[in-house]
Amino acid sequence: MERKVYRLADIAARFGGLVMGDADTRVQQIGTLEKATAGQIAFLANAKYHHQLQGSKASAVILSKADAEATAIPRIVCDNPYSYFAKLSAFLNPLPECVPGIHPSAVIGKGTQISPQAHIGPHVTIADGAVIGAGTVVMAGCSIGEGTVLGENVRLYPNVTVYHDCIIGSHFVAHSGAVIGSDGFGYAMEEGRWLKIPQIGRVVIGDHVEIGANTTIDRGALDDTVIEEGVIMDNQIQVAHNVHIGAHTVIAGCVGIAGSAIIGKYCRIGGSAGILGHLQIADNVEIASFTLIGKSITEEGRYAGIYPFSKNDEWRNNAVHLRHLGDLVKRVKALEKEIKSLKGE
Amino acid sequence: MERKVYRLADIAARFGGLVMGDADTRVQQIGTLEKATAGQIAFLANAKYHHQLQGSKASAVILSKADAEATAIPRIVCDNPYSYFAKLSAFLNPLPECVPGIHPSAVIGKGTQISPQAHIGPHVTIADGAVIGAGTVVMAGCSIGEGTVLGENVRLYPNVTVYHDCIIGSHFVAHSGAVIGSDGFGYAMEEGRWLKIPQIGRVVIGDHVEIGANTTIDRGALDDTVIEEGVIMDNQIQVAHNVHIGAHTVIAGCVGIAGSAIIGKYCRIGGSAGILGHLQIADNVEIASFTLIGKSITEEGRYAGIYPFSKNDEWRNNAVHLRHLGDLVKRVKALEKEIKSLKGE
Amino acid sequence: MERKVYRLADIAARFGGLVMGDADTRVQQIGTLEKATAGQIAFLANAKYHHQLQGSKASAVILSKADAEATAIPRIVCDNPYSYFAKLSAFLNPLPECVPGIHPSAVIGKGTQISPQAHIGPHVTIADGAVIGAGTVVMAGCSIGEGTVLGENVRLYPNVTVYHDCIIGSHFVAHSGAVIGSDGFGYAMEEGRWLKIPQIGRVVIGDHVEIGANTTIDRGALDDTVIEEGVIMDNQIQVAHNVHIGAHTVIAGCVGIAGSAIIGKYCRIGGSAGILGHLQIADNVEIASFTLIGKSITEEGRYAGIYPFSKNDEWRNNAVHLRHLGDLVKRVKALEKEIKSLKGE
Repeated sequence: MERKVYRLADIAARFGGLVMGDADTRVQQIGTLEKATAGQIAFLANAKYHHQLQGSKASAVILSKADAEATAIPRIVCDNPYSYFAKLSAFLNPLPECVPGIHPSAVIGKGTQISPQAHIGPHVTIADGAVIGAGTVVMAGCSIGEGTVLGENVRLYPNVTVYHDCIIGSHFVAHSGAVIGSDGFGYAMEEGRWLKIPQIGRVVIGDHVEIGANTTIDRGALDDTVIEEGVIMDNQIQVAHNVHIGAHTVIAGCVGIAGSAIIGKYCRIGGSAGILGHLQIADNVEIASFTLIGKSITEEGRYAGIYPFSKNDEWRNNAVHLRHLGDLVKRVKALEKEIKSLKGE
Repeated sequence: MERKVYRLADIAARFGGLVMGDADTRVQQIGTLEKATAGQIAFLANAKYHHQLQGSKASAVILSKADAEATAIPRIVCDNPYSYFAKLSAFLNPLPECVPGIHPSAVIGKGTQISPQAHIGPHVTIADGAVIGAGTVVMAGCSIGEGTVLGENVRLYPNVTVYHDCIIGSHFVAHSGAVIGSDGFGYAMEEGRWLKIPQIGRVVIGDHVEIGANTTIDRGALDDTVIEEGVIMDNQIQVAHNVHIGAHTVIAGCVGIAGSAIIGKYCRIGGSAGILGHLQIADNVEIASFTLIGKSITEEGRYAGIYPFSKNDEWRNNAVHLRHLGDLVKRVKALEKEIKSLKGE
Repeated sequence: MERKVYRLADIAARFGGLVMGDADTRVQQIGTLEKATAGQIAFLANAKYHHQLQGSKASAVILSKADAEATAIPRIVCDNPYSYFAKLSAFLNPLPECVPGIHPSAVIGKGTQISPQAHIGPHVTIADGAVIGAGTVVMAGCSIGEGTVLGENVRLYPNVTVYHDCIIGSHFVAHSGAVIGSDGFGYAMEEGRWLKIPQIGRVVIGDHVEIGANTTIDRGALDDTVIEEGVIMDNQIQVAHNVHIGAHTVIAGCVGIAGSAIIGKYCRIGGSAGILGHLQIADNVEIASFTLIGKSITEEGRYAGIYPFSKNDEWRNNAVHLRHLGDLVKRVKALEKEIKSLKGE
């Protein structure tokens, strides 16, 4: 593919910002300060990388006003270099166009409504009554269940599975191996056996949601599992039945969210964290990686609960005392009493 | 699909329990106390939701004797409302029937034995010598390895993979993306390189087992990996080679079980927990979420090892001392000695 | 399949070692000391299983010089019984041969270069411009993206997905459900919305790498995600964008590695461990299961950070004090002062 070339002046005309240095400088791709080569435009969004300005071979740089004079490289000065970079990169690296049509190997059920502007790839299975919107791309090996609705401009990468009766908004992206609408984990014990509770709720997903590879979202038991608009989930996340995730929350990889947890808007959840069932998490809560949230959080802010690592022997020598921490506290209390008594208080 | 309607009297005749209020009350679906609408029957199985009886729009309720007089809504009074609800819901929400036949796009190997009562969906691959029982449903995109045996009334949701030579009982359910029989993690180091150890054991699964989406069960190295009857596993669980899981144990999402661990019957393992290799866990052991079991458990009961979360600054101020907990214990011991000496003991 | 039978003398001629006892003893398969039957050769590589020599029904045993006289069973004495066993087992249990050819149900794009010695299975999709080397086996339901290169003797088990423009070496193995080249997790916030940052890097994987079922490796954001030769990864591992994993490192199941982490050679990372983003881990570092590495490790050795489990009540009684550990330290310091003052120091 031949890349198109843009002048800094063209870019600033489209995305704003002030050009400093030669506005005729031509770029065709984004690069990092460290590895960019001629024809690439880099960006400085984090003070940590400031030293990389020096010696960068980028043809141009995107940076903030504060850094405007920090380099002689032709540059675009703007308020938010990171989002500027995101938008410029999306412009320079558009997704492959949706080529409308249904691959002859795809198997399509009865009563479906597939937009003539949708793309259905090889070996796809679409069950009866499913609805697929315009501009939506369903790649190889995906399976769409009965009665499920995919909005417009959805993109399912290969081997995604969506079960029956799910409702998925527009501009949704699911990476390979993601599973939406699998049964929640509900069983009742009777006479030593587990009876399965039918999972008759749905998964309902808003617009502009993206989920990572091998992420799983279970359908609701009776009511629905709900993912609001703009939620971003990384790979290998498990969302149990009847979870509700508020708009624009971001969740890093390997997080597990137990049943009926209700998570606020604009939360940020770190990798491999966990949230127990039936809890409520307020808006704007930030949870550290590897932290289990075991009770509801009603106040915004940052929360953590991570065991600090150390050399193995050190860890062993310290951790052994955790099993007697309550006793240690009692011993300290006893000492405090003794001291008081010795002092004649 | 038009729903069938049942009178409370019909339901009690079939499932037992005592009808109070109008036995002609008609219901067609289950709902939660909170969201049920007319025509739905709710249930009260947890005291926590007792307050939802008031104001519930359910046409009927399933509840225990203790709660029999707590509402005027027509109701079925029974010993175990939760299992009653499970059975009634399964009755009102039967799985789609197995439509026998092999989809023309499926690829079937030589020497297979596929019951004429089985359903093989689109884009399925069944390798040579595989055996598929009556009533078994293999959905779109599944792959069944050479010589593998699936019992009767098995249900594999789309894109499940079962490797060669596995033995799977009847009434087994695997959700999408599950992988059964992949190689265990076995390598020997020689001269700076890892030599792969062929994994020649099988996976053997009993009857009435269910595993969640993207759960993986590795085949044995030499002997088999064994899952006994009635085991229930949630999504994204990793079961390593030669693990043995006892009957009716339930395992929540994201748990990892290392090689050759032997887990008892009727255990309950919380989400994201871990069990190290070669350990033995007794029957009826309950393991909390996020807990790593690092040595064998010989006694039934509840076990936990979770770092309690707090606000980030608080966590930081406390966690830093964990690296010196051994020292702190020594300082307290020294103080105790000093006190004794000061008291002239 | 009829198994070939080998005399101990034949085996020693091929793989070295000293035969003790009847060199005509015939074996055809490997077994464990505990469960081997006649015709099987077991091995003793771990002192823990020494007692199983007695009573073993194996026809022969592989063991070290130190154990040469510990049994009368015919035996092969060698330096490294475990790697000897690995090599002998690979010899006795060869992988199914690669049967060259493209299954008629496979869908092949334009401009691909597929070796006539490669095997492309049923329902596989290979996009435009992909390159597949000789001896490579792509099993049912796999999807290979545009321009991706698979080396020679690669083995992709069913339902593996490789995205576009990835470069994968020879002798690579990926188990079912693995995903390579999915988008990394990169978003910029602007006016309350997350803007996606196009992930234009690749995944580049060296020779002799194996990854487990449902493991995911994201493509780089701008530069590449790199897995060096000989790396072994278990199931359900998440490798984020721009991670670099050094040669011959082994990673157990369920580990999460955050973006841009750089991991050395010959590291060993335990199950469910985590590594935060942008960290550097030296060569030969061993990380315990369930440990989060929150800062760079510059020195080889073993590291851990695991909360020790106990009975639930015990855990609760101790853990509650973790939230006040800083206070406890202060109280001890105050006591030390008091004692000094009481002693007139």
